[in-house]
Amino acid sequence: MKFEREQLIRFSHCDPAAIVFFPRYFVMFNNHVEDWFDDGLKLGYSRVVTERRVGLPTVSIRCDFSRPSRMGERVHLGLEVERLGRSSITLALECRHGDELRVRAQQVIVTQSLDTGRAIEIPADIRAALTAFQQGT
Amino acid sequence: MKFEREQLIRFSHCDPAAIVFFPRYFVMFNNHVEDWFDDGLKLGYSRVVTERRVGLPTVSIRCDFSRPSRMGERVHLGLEVERLGRSSITLALECRHGDELRVRAQQVIVTQSLDTGRAIEIPADIRAALTAFQQGT
Amino acid sequence: MKFEREQLIRFSHCDPAAIVFFPRYFVMFNNHVEDWFDDGLKLGYSRVVTERRVGLPTVSIRCDFSRPSRMGERVHLGLEVERLGRSSITLALECRHGDELRVRAQQVIVTQSLDTGRAIEIPADIRAALTAFQQGT
Amino acid sequence: MKFEREQLIRFSHCDPAAIVFFPRYFVMFNNHVEDWFDDGLKLGYSRVVTERRVGLPTVSIRCDFSRPSRMGERVHLGLEVERLGRSSITLALECRHGDELRVRAQQVIVTQSLDTGRAIEIPADIRAALTAFQQGT
Repeated sequence: MKFEREQLIRFSHCDPAAIVFFPRYFVMFNNHVEDWFDDGLKLGYSRVVTERRVGLPTVSIRCDFSRPSRMGERVHLGLEVERLGRSSITLALECRHGDELRVRAQQVIVTQSLDTGRAIEIPADIRAALTAFQQGT
Repeated sequence: MKFEREQLIRFSHCDPAAIVFFPRYFVMFNNHVEDWFDDGLKLGYSRVVTERRVGLPTVSIRCDFSRPSRMGERVHLGLEVERLGRSSITLALECRHGDELRVRAQQVIVTQSLDTGRAIEIPADIRAALTAFQQGT
Repeated sequence: MKFEREQLIRFSHCDPAAIVFFPRYFVMFNNHVEDWFDDGLKLGYSRVVTERRVGLPTVSIRCDFSRPSRMGERVHLGLEVERLGRSSITLALECRHGDELRVRAQQVIVTQSLDTGRAIEIPADIRAALTAFQQGT
Repeated sequence: MKFEREQLIRFSHCDPAAIVFFPRYFVMFNNHVEDWFDDGLKLGYSRVVTERRVGLPTVSIRCDFSRPSRMGERVHLGLEVERLGRSSITLALECRHGDELRVRAQQVIVTQSLDTGRAIEIPADIRAALTAFQQGT
């Protein structure tokens, strides 16, 4: 299953060449992960982080930027779950404009206790939601 | 007339105190001005800037932050036209959470030629759209 | 007394018009306040915030942008203390390029308990350092 | 040869967990590449981009975040040239705090004409400076 959203490329995303400055894609993707927790997984991103004190830091990212995105374009962000580990979630992220692939990323996030700063096993309800999403059920 | 949108307070907006870091309100307001040009005035923000080469730089801002906004809150951004000059547009901007005022700003932007870097008279069609919006027609 | 630092205008500060996008001036000024706490006041900004749990939120800002700054320019940031209240510090901030004024701002910050979220009287040692700075001693 | 600089971890870099929000490392690394062009290679980053119209977009990045960085820490950024292609420069970037590795990245940038948007061969003087740096001469 894929979680998709339209994203307007804004003035504030763009650099002096009038294209997206690449670190801002990672902010867009992070926002997309938030929306997915809220609207795709129905877990409530800020509830997970703020109330349950489960952090979701990124431990690695691999990203290819194949074509630039320009101010005013409406691109599509997509997210799929590639792999679930004991405490890690591997996401496949992409940014497309129509049929054209702009950015493809693989991002690994881990579940962490915000109190100890240590990795924790993915909580059962989060794992259930992730598995259901992954299986498209 | 007021142009309003809901805005989710995101992880990326927040500082180590888990509240919005104030410069990021100005990015939210700038995005709100873009949405207003697109959806409120039907002028197309990126068309104005990129194709017509009319820049909209900010020349002054006065802003009061009365209450903090926290991650996960859904606030409302509002925009009204306070005054139209020869080449300046004075906007009243606000961020509210329910009845609670969080931020109130007065921002003056000017219309500028991106080729010469000089202020230009507000183009006739833009002035017409602004006046219609201001009069709520 | 004025606390001054050179600041390189970087690619990441600039917008599609290749000039500084105005919210990024507020990040530069915030960084400048940090450097002033560290090197001007010798108080240690992160010690104040992290260990002593004294927050320094901004409650109002008034800012005029008179001339744009371009990528690659080396501007000067300046900071003076305009007024000290019971729990508020009014700063006069500026950005200059040689003799040319680019930005002038008046920013009011308050001292706050990060545990209660309430304003607190400026702690005695901080007030002493601010007063000495203000009087240029 | 390695180009190194100290970097203060600032309030504006940090997220609600009081650690660096990962996209901001890429801004720090981008700033580091600018400083390297200015002070390491003596090429003048903004002269290359603005006057010579040679863009330096990033086409891929692989990055591992092994340990978090906290507000107030003084980390060290390092940069080495891993490989030079016809129009690509592969950089090895790192962020360390004392002996502790925080972030390691491999970033590929290409030389591009900002007029055509197409990749161009690395200009001869830039290649000479890169080769001299790589060989530590």
